[in-house]
Amino acid sequence: MRASQKDFENAMNQVKLLKKDPGNEVKLKLYALFKQATEGPCNMPKPGVFDFVNKAKWDAWNALGSLPKMLFSSIVHFSECLFIDRGLKLVSSSLQETARHNYVDLVSSLSSSLESSSQVEPGADKKSTGYETLMMTLEDGITKIVFNRPTKKNAINTKMYDEIMRALKAASKDDSSLTVLTGNGDYYSSGNDLTNFTDIPPGGVEEKAKNSAILLREFVDCFIDFPKPLIAAVNGPAVGISVTLLGLFDAVFASDRATFHTPFSHLGQTPEGCSSYTFPKIMGPAKATEMLVFGKKLTAREACTNGLVTEVFPDSTFQKEVWTRLKAFAKLPPNAMRISKEVMRNSEKEKLHAVNAEECSVLQGRWLSDECLNAVSNFLSRKARL
Amino acid sequence: MRASQKDFENAMNQVKLLKKDPGNEVKLKLYALFKQATEGPCNMPKPGVFDFVNKAKWDAWNALGSLPKMLFSSIVHFSECLFIDRGLKLVSSSLQETARHNYVDLVSSLSSSLESSSQVEPGADKKSTGYETLMMTLEDGITKIVFNRPTKKNAINTKMYDEIMRALKAASKDDSSLTVLTGNGDYYSSGNDLTNFTDIPPGGVEEKAKNSAILLREFVDCFIDFPKPLIAAVNGPAVGISVTLLGLFDAVFASDRATFHTPFSHLGQTPEGCSSYTFPKIMGPAKATEMLVFGKKLTAREACTNGLVTEVFPDSTFQKEVWTRLKAFAKLPPNAMRISKEVMRNSEKEKLHAVNAEECSVLQGRWLSDECLNAVSNFLSRKARL
Amino acid sequence: MRASQKDFENAMNQVKLLKKDPGNEVKLKLYALFKQATEGPCNMPKPGVFDFVNKAKWDAWNALGSLPKMLFSSIVHFSECLFIDRGLKLVSSSLQETARHNYVDLVSSLSSSLESSSQVEPGADKKSTGYETLMMTLEDGITKIVFNRPTKKNAINTKMYDEIMRALKAASKDDSSLTVLTGNGDYYSSGNDLTNFTDIPPGGVEEKAKNSAILLREFVDCFIDFPKPLIAAVNGPAVGISVTLLGLFDAVFASDRATFHTPFSHLGQTPEGCSSYTFPKIMGPAKATEMLVFGKKLTAREACTNGLVTEVFPDSTFQKEVWTRLKAFAKLPPNAMRISKEVMRNSEKEKLHAVNAEECSVLQGRWLSDECLNAVSNFLSRKARL
Repeated sequence: MRASQKDFENAMNQVKLLKKDPGNEVKLKLYALFKQATEGPCNMPKPGVFDFVNKAKWDAWNALGSLPKMLFSSIVHFSECLFIDRGLKLVSSSLQETARHNYVDLVSSLSSSLESSSQVEPGADKKSTGYETLMMTLEDGITKIVFNRPTKKNAINTKMYDEIMRALKAASKDDSSLTVLTGNGDYYSSGNDLTNFTDIPPGGVEEKAKNSAILLREFVDCFIDFPKPLIAAVNGPAVGISVTLLGLFDAVFASDRATFHTPFSHLGQTPEGCSSYTFPKIMGPAKATEMLVFGKKLTAREACTNGLVTEVFPDSTFQKEVWTRLKAFAKLPPNAMRISKEVMRNSEKEKLHAVNAEECSVLQGRWLSDECLNAVSNFLSRKARL
Repeated sequence: MRASQKDFENAMNQVKLLKKDPGNEVKLKLYALFKQATEGPCNMPKPGVFDFVNKAKWDAWNALGSLPKMLFSSIVHFSECLFIDRGLKLVSSSLQETARHNYVDLVSSLSSSLESSSQVEPGADKKSTGYETLMMTLEDGITKIVFNRPTKKNAINTKMYDEIMRALKAASKDDSSLTVLTGNGDYYSSGNDLTNFTDIPPGGVEEKAKNSAILLREFVDCFIDFPKPLIAAVNGPAVGISVTLLGLFDAVFASDRATFHTPFSHLGQTPEGCSSYTFPKIMGPAKATEMLVFGKKLTAREACTNGLVTEVFPDSTFQKEVWTRLKAFAKLPPNAMRISKEVMRNSEKEKLHAVNAEECSVLQGRWLSDECLNAVSNFLSRKARL
Repeated sequence: MRASQKDFENAMNQVKLLKKDPGNEVKLKLYALFKQATEGPCNMPKPGVFDFVNKAKWDAWNALGSLPKMLFSSIVHFSECLFIDRGLKLVSSSLQETARHNYVDLVSSLSSSLESSSQVEPGADKKSTGYETLMMTLEDGITKIVFNRPTKKNAINTKMYDEIMRALKAASKDDSSLTVLTGNGDYYSSGNDLTNFTDIPPGGVEEKAKNSAILLREFVDCFIDFPKPLIAAVNGPAVGISVTLLGLFDAVFASDRATFHTPFSHLGQTPEGCSSYTFPKIMGPAKATEMLVFGKKLTAREACTNGLVTEVFPDSTFQKEVWTRLKAFAKLPPNAMRISKEVMRNSEKEKLHAVNAEECSVLQGRWLSDECLNAVSNFLSRKARL
């Protein structure tokens, strides 16, 4: 359980040599352990509720102050929380030595895991050129974009938003007939990842909210404008924006293990992805409100009955049946399919862009509201108590 | 069976002291009995078909002319008939004495029943401030508006139209999160009450039709513009405008005893409540036309399958299940819910107002059409023959 | 097996006396046999792929060149192929005599069949005034328009397009309350008939495509603008435009034997009949794309679940149940029904006309595309190999 001062200094140097950014959560842990190891328990005044970054740092450090053991909580990937800065329960003995020891251990594990992860999967790299959060392949006339953060339930972080946009732009120009989105692992996607939003820019939370709204609008626009048939293969639970966007897809095939959940009100937020328009159009307001306002989680069968899903398959045969079907579709004349989609989309494209702009503008305000901040806080404290 | 001239004069004075307006039907009966008692059988020329008030009076008086017994028919509350001026079968012996006796009896029963009804239900008055046709409460964050004319199957008379608008305006400003409409008794609502429309203004039926169209448009506008989630708890059969308005609600929970019936064509009329737009949008034209044009009555399950109803509950547990659910919804952040609804509604609010204006304008013409007048006449004569 | 030169000359004269045009396919056969009989095997250079008429003639003649037996293939009525000029497999002995003999036989059969068909069904002529491809009756307040090319699966040829427009215009002005479209025989309609499109005008295929787009637009406009409730009684399989148009009907009753198939992509084509707008509106994009882009064939039950069909009946009682219902509907006040439909249609009529124009314009380009021509060729060669 002991680490020498020498070990600690080595670890500090090792951190600087890490080839990959370990992510905000890990950096927060490293910060807290370093402060605890070098300065002892946190004795600074608590930062204001809107000073997300410093509050996150303070929380992490402060959490090390008094408790006997350090447990890294499972990281929270609940979707649609934009400004959550900690999902971690940091507990430690009050001793600086323990912090020092844990710091050394953490750095050591980071070095090896980051090295190894950069070595494995050379095959994947051949297929997906330069994506961190996605896998992308083109085979049998089908471009397949796979959400690839399975340990995070495929939560969409800022990196992933950017990469999805890049992937869609590439897919729109390649020689595939169809583009398919799906998830690696148990989840389709748990929606918006909260950890992106800890980097509050110099302009503060207002600027953060503004930038997030701009990013979201641009992101959704890519789906509105995507020129080929776009198909979702929903392999498991879908949450938040990964659900709302389905209203912009041309077909949705779902495993019977999939669920569809949009708990916007629960987090003080409002619908996006054009769902405020597409969902009432698809299923009528009585069913759409149940999902988008009251947060009802739908089974795959219910989503199919409501028209959000094209067809449901048993999970055991899901991949086989869906890909057999997709490969058959991909053999159809590609221009006819592309132009058919274009004709169908054109009659409401202008409306969709207007709705998207409105939804993002409304959300920008929501993200700064007490309801949103309180809902997120309540969520986290419930989570922490588990 | 005899009433003295003194009794008769007392009754005439009693009528002037009635604290509440006994309603057009009763007033019509009083008129007829008074005329019969004082002038004998009706010998005036029959008024024209469009002179509703005088024709109603004439009909009532004339009906007393020759027959041996007086039967007050059960009052007709069939919805959507605007200009019906009698739903009563007045039969009497030809004797003025019998009329005099019946007049005295009627006044006597009126005095006691109107007195007693103004005394009871002080509790209700505490809750609903100043509504005659509604009960209104605010509890657990929910404003509950109850159609409260159970003996009239909650048919909506002019008073009730006004009170519903007033109640919605109050609900939009109170501190509730949700507003719920439901019915007291067996019916949700049998729709438009015909008895309001016997008061033809000096401008005649054209003015009446114009005023009715203005009232209807204003009424429906209140539903289009209502700013919070609006939920219907459909406890029993719903007819006419109480059905069409459901397309403007955000959620509709129905007892399996509920039915949904819009017999517009049967009465020579056309759809309102924006249903000409919302119903095809919700269920497609093939199902919408079946309801709105061909008058198919839907079960609660059918209405749910068609997307008009959010969920159906067994009647035995309807109240319990619905209110458990509503109370849970009411705990969600109210601004998020309100703004979510606003975003969903905004994308078609302008369209809804235009549709409402068009529907009311068309109905104004319909109400003056032979088809409408004949359909109503046929309906009544069928009813009378039962 | 022998026919004298005299028989041959008689046959040539008989052809000129035929009272009815025997259709392009038969004329093609006559042409080929005549050339073979008079000039021997085809030795002309093959015409270009866009020179449809001459290529059709060449193909027919050339097919007689070497083979021992002549088989008239079952004529291809697959819908939505505009420029198909042959669906026939002509095979013959190489001898001119055989051709001569077959020519004489063909003319002889034509003369008798065309004579007899012009003699029978005097009753039908009483009802339908001057339609070749339709039957039209007015009874019980219902105008019934019957697709009447049962041996061609009620495929819609140019004549039939014109006659349907004429029939709809007549129905809009007659004193019926409802108009019903249905099919004679096993099919409702197999959609667009390819054989119309062999008559390439002097302007070539570009002009042909342009004219076809104009015809299609005008045809669909008749359905958009039809002023009374329009009901389809889908007695059997429906393909292509006979399916897409259903989105413009007010009610659709289907036999459980009916299917709904729109294989546009398979033929390099794109949706028409406003289906690119009506289908996503009725069933959501996830189900609409499956039909319109991926060509899924729906059962009557599936089409009903998706909202395209009002109600499904067992085939054994289909006619009885549907007509009982229709006759009841037809007794409702006609103006109320007409105006109700008008109100429902008006809120999107402008949009529908714009969509129709766009779809036809897109199709005009599609018909000239390699994808369309190749898809049609592939279809035919598959067909020929059967």
